[in-house]
Amino acid sequence: MAFTAHMRLAFVLALAVALPCSMALAQSQVVDVTVHSAGLEHNLLGDPADQPVSIYLPDAYAHDTERRFPVLYFLHGYGGDPATHQNAEHFRAAMDKDIAAGTVKPMIVVLPNGSNKYHGAFYANSSTLGNWDDYIVKDVVSYVDRHYRTLASAEHRGLAGHSMGGFGTLTLGFRHPDVFGSIYAMSPCCTDLAGDQGPSQREWVEAGRLHSPDDVPAALKTGRFFVAADAAMTAALAPDPNSKTLGDMPFVMADGSLKTDPVAYARIAGNMPSNMVVPLLPKIAQLKGIFIEYGAQENFSHIVIGAQETAERLSQAGISNTLEVFQGDHGSRLLQRITDRMLPWMSAQIAQ
Amino acid sequence: MAFTAHMRLAFVLALAVALPCSMALAQSQVVDVTVHSAGLEHNLLGDPADQPVSIYLPDAYAHDTERRFPVLYFLHGYGGDPATHQNAEHFRAAMDKDIAAGTVKPMIVVLPNGSNKYHGAFYANSSTLGNWDDYIVKDVVSYVDRHYRTLASAEHRGLAGHSMGGFGTLTLGFRHPDVFGSIYAMSPCCTDLAGDQGPSQREWVEAGRLHSPDDVPAALKTGRFFVAADAAMTAALAPDPNSKTLGDMPFVMADGSLKTDPVAYARIAGNMPSNMVVPLLPKIAQLKGIFIEYGAQENFSHIVIGAQETAERLSQAGISNTLEVFQGDHGSRLLQRITDRMLPWMSAQIAQ
Amino acid sequence: MAFTAHMRLAFVLALAVALPCSMALAQSQVVDVTVHSAGLEHNLLGDPADQPVSIYLPDAYAHDTERRFPVLYFLHGYGGDPATHQNAEHFRAAMDKDIAAGTVKPMIVVLPNGSNKYHGAFYANSSTLGNWDDYIVKDVVSYVDRHYRTLASAEHRGLAGHSMGGFGTLTLGFRHPDVFGSIYAMSPCCTDLAGDQGPSQREWVEAGRLHSPDDVPAALKTGRFFVAADAAMTAALAPDPNSKTLGDMPFVMADGSLKTDPVAYARIAGNMPSNMVVPLLPKIAQLKGIFIEYGAQENFSHIVIGAQETAERLSQAGISNTLEVFQGDHGSRLLQRITDRMLPWMSAQIAQ
Amino acid sequence: MAFTAHMRLAFVLALAVALPCSMALAQSQVVDVTVHSAGLEHNLLGDPADQPVSIYLPDAYAHDTERRFPVLYFLHGYGGDPATHQNAEHFRAAMDKDIAAGTVKPMIVVLPNGSNKYHGAFYANSSTLGNWDDYIVKDVVSYVDRHYRTLASAEHRGLAGHSMGGFGTLTLGFRHPDVFGSIYAMSPCCTDLAGDQGPSQREWVEAGRLHSPDDVPAALKTGRFFVAADAAMTAALAPDPNSKTLGDMPFVMADGSLKTDPVAYARIAGNMPSNMVVPLLPKIAQLKGIFIEYGAQENFSHIVIGAQETAERLSQAGISNTLEVFQGDHGSRLLQRITDRMLPWMSAQIAQ
Repeated sequence: MAFTAHMRLAFVLALAVALPCSMALAQSQVVDVTVHSAGLEHNLLGDPADQPVSIYLPDAYAHDTERRFPVLYFLHGYGGDPATHQNAEHFRAAMDKDIAAGTVKPMIVVLPNGSNKYHGAFYANSSTLGNWDDYIVKDVVSYVDRHYRTLASAEHRGLAGHSMGGFGTLTLGFRHPDVFGSIYAMSPCCTDLAGDQGPSQREWVEAGRLHSPDDVPAALKTGRFFVAADAAMTAALAPDPNSKTLGDMPFVMADGSLKTDPVAYARIAGNMPSNMVVPLLPKIAQLKGIFIEYGAQENFSHIVIGAQETAERLSQAGISNTLEVFQGDHGSRLLQRITDRMLPWMSAQIAQ
Repeated sequence: MAFTAHMRLAFVLALAVALPCSMALAQSQVVDVTVHSAGLEHNLLGDPADQPVSIYLPDAYAHDTERRFPVLYFLHGYGGDPATHQNAEHFRAAMDKDIAAGTVKPMIVVLPNGSNKYHGAFYANSSTLGNWDDYIVKDVVSYVDRHYRTLASAEHRGLAGHSMGGFGTLTLGFRHPDVFGSIYAMSPCCTDLAGDQGPSQREWVEAGRLHSPDDVPAALKTGRFFVAADAAMTAALAPDPNSKTLGDMPFVMADGSLKTDPVAYARIAGNMPSNMVVPLLPKIAQLKGIFIEYGAQENFSHIVIGAQETAERLSQAGISNTLEVFQGDHGSRLLQRITDRMLPWMSAQIAQ
Repeated sequence: MAFTAHMRLAFVLALAVALPCSMALAQSQVVDVTVHSAGLEHNLLGDPADQPVSIYLPDAYAHDTERRFPVLYFLHGYGGDPATHQNAEHFRAAMDKDIAAGTVKPMIVVLPNGSNKYHGAFYANSSTLGNWDDYIVKDVVSYVDRHYRTLASAEHRGLAGHSMGGFGTLTLGFRHPDVFGSIYAMSPCCTDLAGDQGPSQREWVEAGRLHSPDDVPAALKTGRFFVAADAAMTAALAPDPNSKTLGDMPFVMADGSLKTDPVAYARIAGNMPSNMVVPLLPKIAQLKGIFIEYGAQENFSHIVIGAQETAERLSQAGISNTLEVFQGDHGSRLLQRITDRMLPWMSAQIAQ
Repeated sequence: MAFTAHMRLAFVLALAVALPCSMALAQSQVVDVTVHSAGLEHNLLGDPADQPVSIYLPDAYAHDTERRFPVLYFLHGYGGDPATHQNAEHFRAAMDKDIAAGTVKPMIVVLPNGSNKYHGAFYANSSTLGNWDDYIVKDVVSYVDRHYRTLASAEHRGLAGHSMGGFGTLTLGFRHPDVFGSIYAMSPCCTDLAGDQGPSQREWVEAGRLHSPDDVPAALKTGRFFVAADAAMTAALAPDPNSKTLGDMPFVMADGSLKTDPVAYARIAGNMPSNMVVPLLPKIAQLKGIFIEYGAQENFSHIVIGAQETAERLSQAGISNTLEVFQGDHGSRLLQRITDRMLPWMSAQIAQ
């Protein structure tokens, strides 16, 4: 989960340093489109079924008009209004630089939107928030394959994302290896119900006091990040149209203290990556590559715990993976890590 | 999993020390019966659908003819022929001693059989080995409640077991809190596919070379304990009538080395207690008490790993539990632990 | 670490329920004394070298004038002014009740003070805060053995404590098995530098901004619990007379974000129980009994992580121990747990 | 720990596939020398103080006679006679191939010997086996820097090794960041006393029955790998001239079962990488890069447990690191991993 303002500042600062003007020479482009999804119609938040998607096309796309390209899909973090175009411009800078340096081969990069009225749909199929998993995996992917010269197979499709998008990377990747062959999760949130998302975290008390769907964006705007994010997450992972916030909380107040609601806990934790490894192993085993990273100064303790657990359970089950811990916190070096580490790894996986 | 000979020796030695002759005065008794199960009919090993059960009745049962008693069910370990009567005599000694000492209140103790042609059915419902979970939870429990003066509710029913029986304690307890209210797992096996049950353990290679169901008991008789136990376990947890040993192995030879079979792995690991905590939490949360113990010198490394993981995941999910590590190995102090620790704990749980 | 007000309220409420008037009949008593310590002289906070100690003597002590008694030492949590008398009265209630019920044998209970100008000395020898480990283990114990009819051996001496006192229980117990034979740590704090005491916790930023020793109690009084507690802990575990708060922080601001100070980290984490298990094993192996407990709704995530790690490393090293997770949070059921669980366990360990 | 025969076969097979004849054109060379060590004199096994070292010099070394080169030191695994020349030839193949492909820059690679009469000295300073840590870090490094055109600083020195050599990589790297700036441990053994090196492993019983130093190599030759390796390891990490095998065992037979010897355990476990992280953090924090890898089908369960723990504790302490799990077992893909993964990583670290 990203603090939006923080993240954007990080992007802007990083760009100022990272982009010499020579980059402007590349004839890459960013295209903004809208993709409709039947599965998003009639969601209870009233979010539109037409969602913005921005697409980065490398310089080679325009010149090499017979060539088909591998595609990387990148899922953004929690918070703020849709910013797919802005994010695509960041990727344009990173990709153009990497391609010029020879560390990355030309790839298309697709930036779908995952932000809704709750500031984050967690890329999950939810009976209250809409089917965002279907939206990404079916609607966006088929749109891109229909409209662009793609290498339209899992082998040449990658999925990456940061924070809530890292969660989406792991969950969509684990469920759909037939769509995405290689996945790279950056500081993925919500991989286990532990640490600062665990029992007795005061945010659960406050989240339980929200009265209506409108209180969720209001909580974010008044600085109560975890309250909003927890409410959004539970509506995504344990949807309940009868709940005031459209989802059930895993920990609820009873007799003056927080207690586990075991039904909600099983639904939510069961939809978190660390607990998906065993039941989804037949699918996960089809993935070609799995990379997970987080910062040694990560701000959210559940991210540390969950990344370690997810990687360990993959390893224990015989699945190759890389877990990398870098110097930095939740968002401090995002564009640098994308440029220097994620894109070259992904290129080696899907663009060979 | 117990080495049968080892376990029996441990029992006999322990008895020689533990039982002064004064115990003989108690008018407790052991009754041997047979309980039929429709769910065991037509199992592919040809095991009988009528299975022996031995029942300990405390002295008070005969004298206090209006009184109803709590019932403890105890599940034995892997290996050897059915020995329910012998086990019940061990419990008679322990119970009579504890009742005399005032540390345990009168309880009925039921010793069902869980040994089949594979020397262990793992108390699981299996399409090849028969429905042993149903047998214990439905057939034996209802038989006992129909024929004896029991307190016939989960609150007054306990479940305990050692090794394979500890596995049964956790799996049946997690699935059926409406039947058993309190559970005590002693050195439970098979709680996670790790350590000496993990990938690349040579026993999996050898287990994969077995040619027919008859090879399983033969392996045990020739000292290949893990080969037999692994084959039995997989037939219980990943039954497959087309497999030579009636079950699929989680790790199989391919290109000269062991590889994970992800479908079998998901089935088997998914039926192991550490991985049942999250999906079964709505049931587990109904249990009144959970106790897990193992020896600091435990011989089987997967038991250590799995007990720690199971207890930790219960704790993380907000479920009370006790994890106790004692001086001893897999079977060295079994009757002493039963007498001094398990029975008093169970009495406090179900006989108040 | 306890929220003082919270803890006292918990005590008072619990007492109102737990103590029928019949308890008043027992002729037990609480004695308040002062014990001097050369090792506390000249500490840099100016705390007195004479510290209050309250002593509970059971009814039997007065009547059975030749008898010697086992002794339990109990270490309180972080926060607030010395309250040894008040704590002793709570123990008087619990002990009288347990002795009357037959669950605990007569024992002396000693309540030393561990609160200093920083609201907590963490029972450690510190070149800045004074030698509180020596104070407890040498001065208080020898005072009690000289002035009261004690069974003056480790076999009959127990140590227990809550939160910061649970930390003291583990650290003093691990270091001094020749003094305390059995230890019981209740929701022990500071067992590992993880979770909400780990890298990037914002409290470390704020703790690093304190300007003088006077800022530490001021932080507590203005509700910044962790800031005060972290400053006090570092002064206890990584004392540094040149630091503004008399101790070095494990995580410090550099270039706008928190970084590990590896020297301070090694000192502090090295003095935390989970990391003391291996180097102190020759001493720990001499302990007769180790019990660790915390609540399933524990508020402090580092307590959960550290308790699990400490128990697991003890088990791995072959040391018997019990880890129990109960329904409750950091302080919600303290007096009940003392009465129902800790005192009976301790009695069985040291009063047989 | 490597099965020697296995490892050599793996090398030979891998070479047959990996090395097209065109490699022979490179004018690289392997030089065999002998390096003396005062610290190896008078060791109790009578091993020589002059030990073989083989040195790979890249093609550029001969042509570019003014140029200085970074140096990679590689530590081999347990078992067999010294084979430094053979190992250097393997590296010559790998390096020539990588340099030709452009994935690795020219580096010197140094192959010291770590095999003694016990078939492995574990690269440790031992009062019985000799000071092998000093030998590598002082004698070999200074010899190489005196005789060859090296970039003689930690920044341009790397350390890698496999199995026992992975253990050496972590222990020497953690202790001497002033000598080696970047470290890469491949399937490192002995990182924690757990799993198949833990309590109750039957090999400890048998190791305890060895009667003289001559029994250690004899055990290896008769196929009792773990018995020999455990005896060698304990002589390296807990040296004791009065022990029959020159070292104390962490687990010893008492009353018919294995018990922890807490003094030996603390010495041995305290010298294992997972437990060195906290006390050595001030040194470890100076390292530029740490990489740990093992196979998803790793044969030795302690390697899996210890690698996970070591990486997790580094991360928790704020130290960057990468943990990679690949498809393969303990030795199956060693030369391929060296060629494709280790050498390129090391080149990026020390040869920029």
